[in-house]
Parts: sequence; C-alpha cells; structure tokens
Amino acid sequence: MVKLTLPDGSVKDYPKGTTVQQVADKLGLRDVLAGVVDGNAVDTFYELSKDATFKLVRWGDKEGKEVYWHSAAHVLAYAVQQIFPKAKNTIGPAIENGFYYDFDFGDYKLTEKDLERIEVKMKEIAGKSLSYTKSTIPKESVKKLFPDNPYKTEIADEHEEAGLTIYKMGDDFTDLCRGPHVPSTSVLKSFKLLNIAGAYWKGDAEKQQLTRIYGIAFPKEKLLKEYLEMIEKAKQNDHRKLAKEMGLLVFSEMVGPGLPLYTPHGTILRNEIVQFSRELNTSIGFEEVHTPNITKAELFKTSGHYDKFKADMLSVKSNYSKEEYFLKPMNCPHHTQIYASQFRTYKDLPIRISDFANLYRDEKPGELQGLTRLRCFSQDDGHAFCTKDQIKQEFKNVLGVVQKALEVYKMEYKVRLSFWDPKAKEKYLGDESVWEESQALLKDLLDECKIDYETEDGEAAFYGPKMDVIAVDALGREWQISTIQLDFNMPGRFGLKYVDEKGEEQTPIMIHRALIGSPERFLGILLEHFAGRLPTWLAPQQVKVLPISDKFNDYAKHVADSLPGVRASIDDRNERLQKKILEAETSKVKYILIVGEKEKTDESVSVRLRDGKSESQALHIFAKAINEEIKNRA
Amino acid sequence: MVKLTLPDGSVKDYPKGTTVQQVADKLGLRDVLAGVVDGNAVDTFYELSKDATFKLVRWGDKEGKEVYWHSAAHVLAYAVQQIFPKAKNTIGPAIENGFYYDFDFGDYKLTEKDLERIEVKMKEIAGKSLSYTKSTIPKESVKKLFPDNPYKTEIADEHEEAGLTIYKMGDDFTDLCRGPHVPSTSVLKSFKLLNIAGAYWKGDAEKQQLTRIYGIAFPKEKLLKEYLEMIEKAKQNDHRKLAKEMGLLVFSEMVGPGLPLYTPHGTILRNEIVQFSRELNTSIGFEEVHTPNITKAELFKTSGHYDKFKADMLSVKSNYSKEEYFLKPMNCPHHTQIYASQFRTYKDLPIRISDFANLYRDEKPGELQGLTRLRCFSQDDGHAFCTKDQIKQEFKNVLGVVQKALEVYKMEYKVRLSFWDPKAKEKYLGDESVWEESQALLKDLLDECKIDYETEDGEAAFYGPKMDVIAVDALGREWQISTIQLDFNMPGRFGLKYVDEKGEEQTPIMIHRALIGSPERFLGILLEHFAGRLPTWLAPQQVKVLPISDKFNDYAKHVADSLPGVRASIDDRNERLQKKILEAETSKVKYILIVGEKEKTDESVSVRLRDGKSESQALHIFAKAINEEIKNRA
Repeated sequence: MVKLTLPDGSVKDYPKGTTVQQVADKLGLRDVLAGVVDGNAVDTFYELSKDATFKLVRWGDKEGKEVYWHSAAHVLAYAVQQIFPKAKNTIGPAIENGFYYDFDFGDYKLTEKDLERIEVKMKEIAGKSLSYTKSTIPKESVKKLFPDNPYKTEIADEHEEAGLTIYKMGDDFTDLCRGPHVPSTSVLKSFKLLNIAGAYWKGDAEKQQLTRIYGIAFPKEKLLKEYLEMIEKAKQNDHRKLAKEMGLLVFSEMVGPGLPLYTPHGTILRNEIVQFSRELNTSIGFEEVHTPNITKAELFKTSGHYDKFKADMLSVKSNYSKEEYFLKPMNCPHHTQIYASQFRTYKDLPIRISDFANLYRDEKPGELQGLTRLRCFSQDDGHAFCTKDQIKQEFKNVLGVVQKALEVYKMEYKVRLSFWDPKAKEKYLGDESVWEESQALLKDLLDECKIDYETEDGEAAFYGPKMDVIAVDALGREWQISTIQLDFNMPGRFGLKYVDEKGEEQTPIMIHRALIGSPERFLGILLEHFAGRLPTWLAPQQVKVLPISDKFNDYAKHVADSLPGVRASIDDRNERLQKKILEAETSKVKYILIVGEKEKTDESVSVRLRDGKSESQALHIFAKAINEEIKNRA
Repeated sequence: MVKLTLPDGSVKDYPKGTTVQQVADKLGLRDVLAGVVDGNAVDTFYELSKDATFKLVRWGDKEGKEVYWHSAAHVLAYAVQQIFPKAKNTIGPAIENGFYYDFDFGDYKLTEKDLERIEVKMKEIAGKSLSYTKSTIPKESVKKLFPDNPYKTEIADEHEEAGLTIYKMGDDFTDLCRGPHVPSTSVLKSFKLLNIAGAYWKGDAEKQQLTRIYGIAFPKEKLLKEYLEMIEKAKQNDHRKLAKEMGLLVFSEMVGPGLPLYTPHGTILRNEIVQFSRELNTSIGFEEVHTPNITKAELFKTSGHYDKFKADMLSVKSNYSKEEYFLKPMNCPHHTQIYASQFRTYKDLPIRISDFANLYRDEKPGELQGLTRLRCFSQDDGHAFCTKDQIKQEFKNVLGVVQKALEVYKMEYKVRLSFWDPKAKEKYLGDESVWEESQALLKDLLDECKIDYETEDGEAAFYGPKMDVIAVDALGREWQISTIQLDFNMPGRFGLKYVDEKGEEQTPIMIHRALIGSPERFLGILLEHFAGRLPTWLAPQQVKVLPISDKFNDYAKHVADSLPGVRASIDDRNERLQKKILEAETSKVKYILIVGEKEKTDESVSVRLRDGKSESQALHIFAKAINEEIKNRA
C-alpha cells in the first residue's frame, strides 16, 4: 500500500501501482487532467509507488492549465507536421496564457491564412480523441526518430541522462517531451492561434531564426470567447500604445533596446509614483540612500550573486584597471555596506534603508518588451536589518503601506506566502526554529489583518520565506508587485553584526522589500489598468485649456494662472477646436476646459466630459476640486 | 621690425631679435618672469622674430605662477639629485597650487626628515642665483645624457619630433623640459615642501610606483605664511574629514574607488541640493527627463564622444549581444533623442530638457579623491534647443538662476567667457556671423547685468563659445561650477530639425548648461565652504534634543513632536550630557537643544551656541524661527 497525503491533510491508502486516474475514479472526481505527486506533475496513467503528498489537477488549477496548454501545443505541432511536412519542430511549452511552438519553416514565411488552416487541422486532430502515451528511449535513438531535425538532436546531446522521454499522440505524432499530458485530445475543445512571431533557437540572436506560433485553448467555447474579448481590450490598453499616444517614452535605436528614455510627461508620471513610494517609506521609518550603479565583482562574489546571477549581469570594463565591474542587478549588497559602515547595537535596530537606484539586468534582446521587461529600471527598494523579534512588526509595516498604495492605485490584490519544503529542510539556510517561528508569524499577521492568502510549500528561497502581494488589474490580470522577503543568509556572508542586550555579538536578520516593485514596470501596469485615464494626481497633463478662438487667449491664460500647483497648459494654436479636442483626448489630458464668451463673462470653464458633453463650472469651484483631488491622490 | 600687439590693444614695433627681457626693460617693467607670444609662454631670453600678440608675465599672472612653480620643481629635482644621487627623476610640472616632482627612489622610502633636508638644499641652490638655459638635442642623445634613467628614455622614445629641448640650471643640473623658466633661481625666495605621496609612472597602476613630492614657492615669506595658514584651515575643513564626522558617505573597498555610497544623512543633503536645482530649472521652463545610464556605442559615435572621449568612458558588455555599450559620461546625446522623437516647429522652441542621471567617467584610480573627482556622479544638467534669436534670453535665464543659487549658497563668483581664436577661425564649426553675434551678445548680457567678466580668446570649444561661472569659497578658492555653452555642431550631427516661420527646415542651436554642476562635487565644496556648519535648510540634522536626564525624555519627545517638517531627533541614550553634546557638535547638528526642569516648566528650549554658551527660547518661537529658515533656504 502507499499512503497519499491529500491537500486537505487527510491521508489515504491505495494499493501500490494504483494510477492517478484510478484514484480520481475512486474519489469520484471527473475531468482530471493530471496529478501532482510530491510536488511533481504526472500523467493520469502514472502508477503510484510510494508514500507521497498528492493532488488531483483539473482545469481550474494552475498546473491543470499548464498541462492542458502543453498538450494543445503538441496538437499544434502535429497539425503543422501534416500541412508542412518539411517544417522542423523544436520546442513548444505552455506559457502564462496559452502556449507556443517554435518551428523552422526553412525559407517559407508563414501567413495568417496558414494559421487558419492549421487551426482547422488542430480541431480535426483533437476530435479524433487521440490518447497521449509515454516511453523512454536511449539518447542515441533520437537522431533516428527525428531524422533531419538538428534541434531535437541538439536537445538530446545536451541531455545529461542516458534516456529521454517521448510522448506519442495517436500513431503518427511523436515528440521529445518531459510531459505530463492530458489523458486524451478529446478534452481539448476550443482552439485559437493568436499570432506569429520571430524567435531565435534558444533565445540566442546568434542562432537560427525560427517561427513562433502562439495559441490558446479552452475546454469551453464561452471561455475562449471571454478570453478573446479580454485580449482585445488589453490590446487597446496596451501600455506601449498608450505610452506612445500620451508621449511618455522614447525608444531610440541608437540608445538600445530595453532602455527607454522618459520624456517630460513620462518623468512626471514616474516621479509621482516614486514620490508616493518615498512618502510611504518615510512613514514606516525607512531612510533613503543614494548608491552607484556599478560595483566591483568582489561585492557580488561575497553576496553570492556572482555565482548564481552572473549571466544576468552586464559587465563593465575600465581602461585603467583589470578589475571586473558589474552593473548592479539589485541594491541589497550595497545596503549591507552602509549597515557595515558603523558600529551597531540592538538599540539602533531596525536599520531601515531605501533606494531608488537604477538597476540593470542583461535580458535577452528578444525578451524585452515595453516596460514589462527592461534592461534598465529601478525599484522602490528597501532593506530592514532587524532582530528576530522585530520581524513581525516590519512585515506589518510594509504590508500596511502596500495596502495603502494599492487602495490609492485602485487595485485589488492577493497575498501569497512562499514557505520552505518541510520535507527537505536540509536545503535551507538558517535555524529550523527561526524558519518555523517566522513562517507562523507571517500567517498570524495575515490572519490578524483578515487578509486571504495562499501558501506554497517549497517555494521559499533557500535563505528565507517570503510574502508576495499580487495586484489584480481592471482586466483581472495578475501582477506580482510587492515582495517582503526574509533573509537569514546575506548578513552572515557580509559579517554584519550588532551587539545585543547582553553585550554579545549577533547577526541581524535582513528583510528585502519592495512596495509596488519597479516604478517603470508599474507605470506600464497603471496605464493598462486605467486604460490611460489616470487619476488626476498621476496624469502628466492635468488640465488643457482650449480657447474657442484667439479672442479668448487672455482668458485661457487667466484660467491656467488660476490653477497654481496644477499641471495646466493652453492650446492656443491656430487649429480647429475639434482637432485640438481630439488631440487632447488622445494624449489623455485629464480635464479639457473649453473657454469662450460665456465662460469669460461668467468666470467659468466648460469641462468636457467623456461622453462628449460638457459641464459648466465656476472657475474657483473647479480649481478647488482639482486641488483636492491632487492633494488626496485621487 | 616686428609688431607686437599688447594686451591693451596697443601695437609696438621692435627690432627683430629683441628679447622678451629687453621689451620689459624698455617698458620699464620689473620682475618679469616670462612672456606670452601668440598665446604660448616663452622664456625671457626668447628672441622675437615676427608680428605677434604679446604679453609680459609676472607673479600676479596665472602664467607667471606656472612658470615660477615649474622652475621651483627643477630646483627640487636638483636638490634631490645632490642628496640622493641614485634617485631617478621623472617629471615635475606646476599644478594649480605649487608643483610636484615624481622620483624613483628604488627601495628607499622617503621620510619627513628627508623633506626638511631637501628643503634646506633647495634654498641653498636658489641662493646661488643660477640661470636657466635652453638647448635642443637629438632624440638619440637622451639616453647618453640620462644614463640609467629609463623614464627619460621612454619620454624621448615617445616624442614625435627628432629634437627635444633641455634646460640647464647652472652647470650641474639638466632636465628634459619644454620650459619656459624664470630668468634665474634668485627670484625663487620662499619654499615649502608640503608632502610625500605615491604615484604611478604615467598614472597607470600597472606601471612603476614612484614617490611624488609636493611643494610650493613664493616670492615673499609673507605669502608663503598666508598660504600655509590657508591650507591648514582647508585641512581642517577637508570635505572628506567632515563627511566622515557628519556620517554622510561610505566608501567600500568592495564597491570600488570613486564610487561613494551616500548614507541617509548624505542623501538628505544631496537631495536638498538636487531639489533646489530642480526648482530653479522649473522656474526657467526646463522639464525633467529620466534617461538610462548605458547606451550603445552608436549614439556616441554619432555625437563624436566615441572618437574624442572613448578613453574616459567605461565600456559595458552584454552576454547576449556583441554590440558595444558604454556608461554615459554626459547626457547631451540622450537629450537629442528626446528632441528628435517629435516633429518640432519654431513655435515649440525653445525645447528645454533637464536631467539628474548618474554619469560615469573612467578616471584613473590614482586621480580619484573624495567628492572632487569621482567615477560616478550626476549633474544638474540641461539642454535647450533654440533658434539664434533665443540664445540671449536662454543665457540670461540660466545666469539668473545661477546667481540666485550662489546667493542662497552664500558664495561669491566670477564669470569667464571662452571665445574662439579670431586668428584661426577655420578651426571652428558654425557660421562666422553666428559666432560673432553670439559672442557679442554674451558680452552685452553681462554688461547689462553689470557682471564683471574676463574673456579668453581661443578657449572656446570647436563647436561654440561658452560662459563659465566660477564660485569663490570662504577660503578664497575658486571652483568652476556652472557652464553655459553654445553648440553649433551636435544638432547637425543628429540631424535635428525644426520648421521655421517660412515653413523651411532649420537646424536648432543647442545650449549645454549646468547650474551648480555636479551635486556630489558641490556637496564637497559646500562642506568646505561652510566648514561643515551648513545652513539650516541643508543640514542633514537640523535639531537634536538632549534631555539632561531620563526624567525629561517625555518633554524631549514633546519638543521633537512640536517641530513638524524639521529634521529633529532625540538623544536619550544613557550617556553623559557632555559626551552627547560633543558628538552632536562633531556631527554638525545645526541646533542642539538641551532640556531639563526649567525648560519643561517654561515650555522652552535651551539652544546651545557655538561658543559653548546657551540661550533660552520659548519652544514656539524656536519652532517658528527654524521653520522660517528652512522655508527661506537660510
């Protein structure tokens, strides 16, 4: 018999060799797509052989979608193989939303028309209810199985073990694959191929260019329809499109990819976000520091980043020194140096340091996009150095201001706790008691604050547990923004000390934390969340005054002058009013004020509303209202 | 006959072959140290051979001090040669204050005692009234003349022409030297050798380590005494010492030289300087942008920095791209990209862009010191793109806020105009008329503003004339901080355009400008200027409240709480009051408030004055006064 520990904590016995599907059948659970045994996803035909934690996975589960979409990617590859027998398939994973598969079509350039044909073929294949079967073959057989496909051979060559698993779907399609897959293509109901993109083999611009097909699949047509509506809306609200219309960013070929320049309007928006985080930091005792962007390798060797993170760091070379320098990917090692610069006692703790320095990550050029993935960005970053007894209060402080921030930004959120794997404690650094206590107190804290959360065992970093806050935007999309992370490792690596009440030297605990994460990335999230219609305090252009003719330029100036502290400008160009209104709307001016004879006489303004109608307001009332909005960050 | 144009514009004829000394004699000018012919300094024995601009140089002139100190450096080398016959001399230039000479003493470590002996020997040599004579020798003879001195041989090897000039001083001392020198050692009266430092041959840490001796010399003992008093004071006020006492900066071996980390206190000070410049920028229409620190080589190739400045730029390497990247040494190329991102008409001009991005210069490690010379720093930088007609107003705007800034920082200043060389107009880019007009209008502007200035012909960059503002600190030292510089070149290189009134494409003119220059360097200047006793608005620690015993901790808290918007803290540690006062004074707390029974009863504070006495003030009066100071940047 094997003992399975289910997610609700109950333990059930099954005969050795029972399959995942059989367990599902016994529990009376339908539509099971896969299982998770000891944290690893497995097929429904997997036979249980030893005691384990166990979970059945359906569409509603994160793992379920992953298996579902990866299986759909195989259907895509099969369809392509049938229509384009010469195309070479490479790899095709599930992604956050849907899946892709990369093909080498030789000289052929895939068209939208082709996508439609492939989609039809996919439905045909899925309709055949083909089952997925798994087997293992020796490395040497890969070349025979995939003649003329150097990609598969390369994967096999780089594989460390002697055997590789393959999955067959029906009789005619085989792929190298770790799996798992859904039991049958019959569960794959509604497909949509979304677009064609270029991609490099292994993401390396030096290697072969491939054609990537993105797609998605759902078990119900209705879900597909809702999704397609959502992405249509998201496309309209794409922050890259909005940022362009609003004139916030400049990308220059000569400067480089992933390195946007923030225009005056973009800088206003960025500075507002930064300033708000700065005030929140100050309110919980964080003190700002200013640190350089480059640093000797030595710092990163001590912190451990050099060993683990080197491939993501840009290196810097001086003409006058052989020493290796790097652009810093994070601020933590620098903050240890500020901590270390003074003698510290328990009375000085917590030491709380915040920083908005530019950080650099050496992203692959193909992976850069808009503000979501950048080479240069900053964070509303901070580190607290504290005693064990201060952990809870520090988390509470940070969580409190994150909640405050998300309230102001009008976003919902979720909380996720990442804990250690209680079955593999040896993989983690730090005392067992400190881990257990701190994990318990994080739960306590969230319970006290009446905040829902999910806990993921085994997801903690080796140096400490963490709490992530995931913001949910207006389209229901999730963005991990805030993180509060315990670190039992780095203070020791840098030999940080404080003297406790007994006069003995102790190592402080370090807490890494960010409120909204990167202001630049968050700027992009906000643009999409608000569809560009930012709250007044954030809007780079809060007011534009449009005189209906030259005669009212003076009054327009009077209006703008009556709005001190407001970002107001006048459009007195010699253009048609309709054109000016359209331009102001496109660039997402918050308030468009139209002024003419009536307004001049009344000392009023005509505020243009979203529906195209107008509302007349006394100038002093408008001025008071907008100042209130700005003051209250509304 | 040769025609000499004197500094006052008068023209005088002298027979060909007349020496500089003879001109001085004829003009009845005594104590002449050298001449300047067509901009080049020459010895007094120099024979005039053609028409030229001409100036006689004495101690009071900049060139005079340079010649004087360089001649003193030869006396130093002679004295070392007599005392340490095995020491190899290398080079010995005049510097801003005094001179140095670098020697290779082999394994011998020079002592303070030695300096005294050398100084005595120098006086003995100078007393002999030795004259300096000049001759030219062929490259090949250098090795013979300086056997066992590889440095001189290396200089000769790298010399481009066939002949090198040497100067003899009396009969026993010869040095490779371009000159010129004073007529005789007899004018060198009062010497002081100031200190010994390590230096590398050619400033390259990979090369031989040398011993550098710094010294100074004056024609009068009184001047030397005054100078030594000044440097003693400067040493007390050295910003490195003050920054340490005040806890403003951290230098970390692991981060690297020239890359300070600004602590919370240092960041407050830096942010105050930046915020003031930001407000001044806004007041004259500059809009802030935010730009990355790294950039593809292409941008710098287009701007011209790649060719001219590459050795001073740190290069950056990505793991995923072969393209060359650099850390930017200046913001101007980036600002052209923001200008170029939109269509511009004459109505849009001037476009004014400001930026506080970190900049990087690849300084030689040996040349880094404190905040004066850094690898990472920022500037209160900005660029205006304008028409020819807008130049004067732009200069006026910037000069106006620079004056305002220096008034607030309580510093005197001088203005220097750098114009083109009217005799070599072909070396400069841009229309002659634009040069002449803009140079004239800069003079007009300063005349209108009743500001004294000096003009230096031939000191302009090839791309445009400039105006520099030189701040003078409390010790009379000069610091070039602000620059306003015309650029007729870069806009064209980047193809920048605007459409003028006639609908025709034109190239804008670019103005580079900084107000106080680098906030980090200026922070150092301010520390020295105020001897650490910063005005209230700048002081990182504005108030420290010291309760005379635990009994008054509550009242101390009440005092701090009564000072919202003031950087106030309480020192309630269990330490002696005297110790706390001393610590607060050392860290340059602006107001030390001592509170006990009397203060608690009166709702007052006892403000500690500099002389150690105290002054009692009602709390609300103190609060009002300090808030006024902060508001008024006093």
